[in-house]
Amino acid sequence: MQRVLAATLPAEVGHQVRIAGWVHRRRLLKSVAFLIVRDASGLAQVVVTEPENRADLEQLTEESVVEVVGTAVANQAAPAGVEVVDPEITVLTRAEPPPFDLYRPALTASLPTLLDHGALSLRHPRRRAAVRIAAAAVHGFRSTLDAMGFVEVHTPKIVASATESGANVFAIDYFGRSAYLAQSPQFYKQTMVGVLERVYEVGPVFRAEPHDTVRHLAEYTSLDAEVGFIRDHRDVMRVLRDALAGMLASIAERAGADLVPYGVALPEVPAVIPEVHFVDAVKMVGEATGEDLTGEPDLAPAHERWLGEWARREHGSEFVFVTGYPMAKRPFYTHPDPDRPGYANGFDLLFRGIELVTGGQRLHRYEDYLAALAERGEPTAPYQSYLDVFKHGMPPHGGFAIGLERFLMRLLGVANVREVTLFPRDLNRLTP
Amino acid sequence: MQRVLAATLPAEVGHQVRIAGWVHRRRLLKSVAFLIVRDASGLAQVVVTEPENRADLEQLTEESVVEVVGTAVANQAAPAGVEVVDPEITVLTRAEPPPFDLYRPALTASLPTLLDHGALSLRHPRRRAAVRIAAAAVHGFRSTLDAMGFVEVHTPKIVASATESGANVFAIDYFGRSAYLAQSPQFYKQTMVGVLERVYEVGPVFRAEPHDTVRHLAEYTSLDAEVGFIRDHRDVMRVLRDALAGMLASIAERAGADLVPYGVALPEVPAVIPEVHFVDAVKMVGEATGEDLTGEPDLAPAHERWLGEWARREHGSEFVFVTGYPMAKRPFYTHPDPDRPGYANGFDLLFRGIELVTGGQRLHRYEDYLAALAERGEPTAPYQSYLDVFKHGMPPHGGFAIGLERFLMRLLGVANVREVTLFPRDLNRLTP
Repeated sequence: MQRVLAATLPAEVGHQVRIAGWVHRRRLLKSVAFLIVRDASGLAQVVVTEPENRADLEQLTEESVVEVVGTAVANQAAPAGVEVVDPEITVLTRAEPPPFDLYRPALTASLPTLLDHGALSLRHPRRRAAVRIAAAAVHGFRSTLDAMGFVEVHTPKIVASATESGANVFAIDYFGRSAYLAQSPQFYKQTMVGVLERVYEVGPVFRAEPHDTVRHLAEYTSLDAEVGFIRDHRDVMRVLRDALAGMLASIAERAGADLVPYGVALPEVPAVIPEVHFVDAVKMVGEATGEDLTGEPDLAPAHERWLGEWARREHGSEFVFVTGYPMAKRPFYTHPDPDRPGYANGFDLLFRGIELVTGGQRLHRYEDYLAALAERGEPTAPYQSYLDVFKHGMPPHGGFAIGLERFLMRLLGVANVREVTLFPRDLNRLTP
Repeated sequence: MQRVLAATLPAEVGHQVRIAGWVHRRRLLKSVAFLIVRDASGLAQVVVTEPENRADLEQLTEESVVEVVGTAVANQAAPAGVEVVDPEITVLTRAEPPPFDLYRPALTASLPTLLDHGALSLRHPRRRAAVRIAAAAVHGFRSTLDAMGFVEVHTPKIVASATESGANVFAIDYFGRSAYLAQSPQFYKQTMVGVLERVYEVGPVFRAEPHDTVRHLAEYTSLDAEVGFIRDHRDVMRVLRDALAGMLASIAERAGADLVPYGVALPEVPAVIPEVHFVDAVKMVGEATGEDLTGEPDLAPAHERWLGEWARREHGSEFVFVTGYPMAKRPFYTHPDPDRPGYANGFDLLFRGIELVTGGQRLHRYEDYLAALAERGEPTAPYQSYLDVFKHGMPPHGGFAIGLERFLMRLLGVANVREVTLFPRDLNRLTP
């Protein structure tokens, strides 16, 4: 007999069925006992009345793996209106009792305990839902970009030099030589624009972040895109807008039910996301709050929140682009605004008042790279293999990167990025 | 005016067009000059007759980035029957002359030179085709498994202990502690079977391979799948069969034209791939070759080739499964055949007589893991976080891994895996 999944039981009423899964919960009442079996699709209720079966069930532990053959019958009181009666229960694998209950609506253990037992806590419907939502988001990202002529690439994670300035890089012993883990696929995705014009990558990036905060991870999944033959950063913003809309549509389609434990509604992405230049943003915030923000090179979190409110109020949008940040705070490969060279042809996308995505146009001429590094007092030698790419004809291009786990954190409204990360890596955590 | 791609020019005959791309080739004849522009879609021929234009063209270098506005006209003699006349040519980025010709049908520089200039050699139509074929293969892998209820995961690449026995592991300085780069997602994909039953991952794996051969890489892309609630390894073989068929169908659909430079036809995957047990395989090979193979724990490459020929001759299949390898040569997590405990519930898939994929059923009981490690004289401590997973109820499960670059190498019939690898990493190579 073919196994059926819990979710398809309602279609089996009146038939003998074989189900299999984990002992989610046992309810041992006086006259009857219930065995709740959890599988990938959901929960199934098994009714145990026969004394020998009941004795076995009393000995069973939660999370043991069982197979149940019985008859599916309709019962209004059962979950999804169906339950399995007259069961024959076979234990496939007996489990140690779990250190916390997985059947309660919320996991009550502390976050460190839940993460220490990641293999187990991920089985909780809420945490499991986040894994499915993540997969749906990534699917939407890919399918949207595929349809726009992008090609997926997988670029090296072991690299000869840091991709972003700063010390937040993990060192590797590479056959006796020094190497590093890529902080981003930035250089390689730009390189591949020279080959295929439009590329994207979904892969791990590594940051030796010394910050122990709710939003920093040492390893996360980055959704990167890069596109050639653009006019300026606005072409990149349009691609990002469509990618985000595709991600949210895919979540709605493929993981809509998984949003339920989080109690959140998916935001609408406007056809054109409202946009405000950094200079105007600073002016608006300054006027509204009375702060003197003259010469500020960046926006503080409180200012971003204000802009998020402003976008909602004035434009009915939960998303807002801030463009034209001062060049000083942007990476060396940033393309300046030709009309206002102190400001970047780049953007941050704020979602509900928090920065979600950074992107922009990049330099594409070799001599511009040399000048940009010289101006920052940085040597060219560590970047030579990257700089060489620009000797051989690169078109105007730009791109963006979405951090998958932070995207989920903000979308699902959880307090700590680790709650929506499969097996987090941070300053203190290397297992499981 | 919207830019049009080279491939869509035939639809533009009679219209003014704007194209953009790289100077693929210049042909400076006496009375006329041709500029061949390459973009992501293909090649476009531009006819230059006007003297000033010609003078500019003579100064131009291959791989410079240009924009051309002109009129698309039909011409039987031109590629795809169309060319652009009366052009106005704008140079967007001037390139240094490339160190080798990209317009010839074959790249003639040595492989090390081509790899040193990966950003350039990848622009050659043949190498570029392999990137697109890889993307199509991965797309087919994902879409096939998606349709079978698998969920995509992204598991950590920084790990606390080696995942496979042996010393081929890269060490990292992880905030002052020892850590390693994952040699495979093996432990995590098994763990996730306990959460979602069916999972897959497409991501980098890292092997500190001290072998300088045509098929070893220090970093490659692994297509991993793992499935729970199986009866035995044959359920895994069926998933693999469908995944392969999906990969090949996706290549045909999305990258069929990219196969042309390789001159290969895609193989047919039979509905049921023929299967031979290791013991029978050894017997057949021994009888056919006269070799005494008694007690051999593995198949030599010549034996695999013989089996490939046998499968083609007897079953009309380019694929053949060899099952039931001796346990001694399989990893400790391998599930033995309950009826012949010295042999594994596992398989190798041979393609044209060469091993392409390894997979099988895994142990799923905690005590079986302890016994397996004890039998091999291996300590349990390095694996404790992994072993703990099996205390909490794991179903019978198994899976497989396909190395993307080796798959391409064999499918496209190239001599060195580096020819179909984006930016190879090996014993000697860390850049570009």
